Amino acid sequence: MSKPIVGHLDPYFFQVNEEIRRGLQMCFGTKNEFTMVISGTGSAGMETAVANFIEPGMKTGIFANGYFSDRLTEMARRHGADIVRFEKPWGETYSDAEAAAWIAEVKPAVVAFVQAETSTGAYQRGHAIAKAAHEVGALVIADCVTSLGGMPCEVDEAGIDIAYSGTQKALGCPPGLAPITVSPRGVEWLRSRKSTPVTWYLDLKLLLDYYESAHRYHHTAPISMFYALHESLRIIEEEGIEQRWARHKSNHELFVEGLKSIGISMHVAEGKRLWTLNTPLVPEGVSDAAVRKTLMDEHGIEIAGGFGPLAGKVFRIGTMGYGSSPENVDLLVRALGAAMRRN
Amino acid sequence: MSKPIVGHLDPYFFQVNEEIRRGLQMCFGTKNEFTMVISGTGSAGMETAVANFIEPGMKTGIFANGYFSDRLTEMARRHGADIVRFEKPWGETYSDAEAAAWIAEVKPAVVAFVQAETSTGAYQRGHAIAKAAHEVGALVIADCVTSLGGMPCEVDEAGIDIAYSGTQKALGCPPGLAPITVSPRGVEWLRSRKSTPVTWYLDLKLLLDYYESAHRYHHTAPISMFYALHESLRIIEEEGIEQRWARHKSNHELFVEGLKSIGISMHVAEGKRLWTLNTPLVPEGVSDAAVRKTLMDEHGIEIAGGFGPLAGKVFRIGTMGYGSSPENVDLLVRALGAAMRRN
Repeated sequence: MSKPIVGHLDPYFFQVNEEIRRGLQMCFGTKNEFTMVISGTGSAGMETAVANFIEPGMKTGIFANGYFSDRLTEMARRHGADIVRFEKPWGETYSDAEAAAWIAEVKPAVVAFVQAETSTGAYQRGHAIAKAAHEVGALVIADCVTSLGGMPCEVDEAGIDIAYSGTQKALGCPPGLAPITVSPRGVEWLRSRKSTPVTWYLDLKLLLDYYESAHRYHHTAPISMFYALHESLRIIEEEGIEQRWARHKSNHELFVEGLKSIGISMHVAEGKRLWTLNTPLVPEGVSDAAVRKTLMDEHGIEIAGGFGPLAGKVFRIGTMGYGSSPENVDLLVRALGAAMRRN
Repeated sequence: MSKPIVGHLDPYFFQVNEEIRRGLQMCFGTKNEFTMVISGTGSAGMETAVANFIEPGMKTGIFANGYFSDRLTEMARRHGADIVRFEKPWGETYSDAEAAAWIAEVKPAVVAFVQAETSTGAYQRGHAIAKAAHEVGALVIADCVTSLGGMPCEVDEAGIDIAYSGTQKALGCPPGLAPITVSPRGVEWLRSRKSTPVTWYLDLKLLLDYYESAHRYHHTAPISMFYALHESLRIIEEEGIEQRWARHKSNHELFVEGLKSIGISMHVAEGKRLWTLNTPLVPEGVSDAAVRKTLMDEHGIEIAGGFGPLAGKVFRIGTMGYGSSPENVDLLVRALGAAMRRN
């Protein structure tokens, strides 16, 4: 980030951007040429997806099982969507059959789901959702904020049309940019869109003109953040994306085992858990806040609490990026065990 | 920027943010408590102003004398404004009398103008505009992207209600954040706003809840960029804001004199020029592009050309931030003189 800054129309900037595109394609699991970053944090990525692909009055089906699907709902509402929600308790996921049946019945124009739900620790696969959505002609938006770089997003394999993320989770980069990828079907959708998006800053057609061949000035991109993401992606490439996913998986499993050994079980069902963000249940009689304070004060370890319906019921503990290591898991389990005995 | 990253709800982050607020108040020339930064570049600041203060159907008067007032117009149009423009050729400014007469006649609900027009090099004072606007009950938005940190914005003195900027111009910081300040009148306006803004990412009421006492999670702020702005503002404080303005003024004047000595005159009338961004006229028979290429290839100096109605007619040359020094001015005048003789 401390490298000399070049202009937002400098050839070197577009070269950096091209390399970022290749790195992001690898992490998203996509061949989409339309893979770029938005000059804002993860939520700007979410708003970009909503503002560009949902037109006023458009029937939008949202799989609602956590905080970020609520945020998606709020954004879609503001953009005039006709919203239908498939509600589930926070932490649950949708089976292929129930997702498909719901979409077939509701027949939305756009379907949105959260692949990696940071508020609950649950992972939702997109394959069945995308298949059913495409059968009714709908576009599929997936929130990959907490999966990208730490576990497979399977954008092409699942058939996801628009996926967005943030840089500060499993990509291991400071916050500041929102990666986004759009399928050829999504690009067609954008081209045939009738109304102009209300947002100018996040208008993908204008951003395409800037980042692609024309390089028409749009905004001044935060070049230092591009350098940061560029380097993060090089570190990921060095490790190998498959190896990185495997590392996140094994450290997550090690953590779950360690938690079990100190009598703590998980909120999310086995096989549905994120490898990047763990939600162990706060045991009966233990003060969530006191444990977190002890960890912070005595070990300098910051873990998060649950919120919304999960307030006081779960911890939210990241094992992502550089932080996902057997040493950290071991340290954390021991510190957590000691803190629990005292609180 | 390379300092360790803390969480977006960490007390240290809010301490940094508080110091940023004080620094920005000094640069904007305001006591507005509502002074903060938006997590996007300058154009995100512009969109924040438009999206939060202009409601659909609202009569919006725009002083249209350059590219960025056109961008303001486009954003306001997208947000449903009823737009009336006071058109002038690029590079001209508005006298107190004509600005006041126009506002009194049009009676807009919101008035927007560009204080420092990067496309033309013209500075528009806000005093008469704000006085006339307030007389008809209108709110005043000013674009201060290229003035903040390099020349007085006079937000309180002029009576500007909303002013926004970017970090990468005269603040001397990398691009990535958009400072914004809102007067008590603007805050009242925001509180009594009837409709919800379409944008969630740039919704100032939600941002207030995050940055102010409640510290309710909104988005993950790009903390490294906050560190950068924090340091830039400390450098400005060290120099002294008055001294910094004086330095920008004297180096601008030195540059104009130097240009005169090599037979080049300015596009903007004396007294109406930005100190940060100079627009000398391209002399008859000289190729704008060839001169710029020579400067870049032989001296590593990057200057910009005019665009829109000023394409091929002016150079756009920054003398801002660290770059505004007598040595740079001298070097530039000599390099420019040599390049002109050859192209």
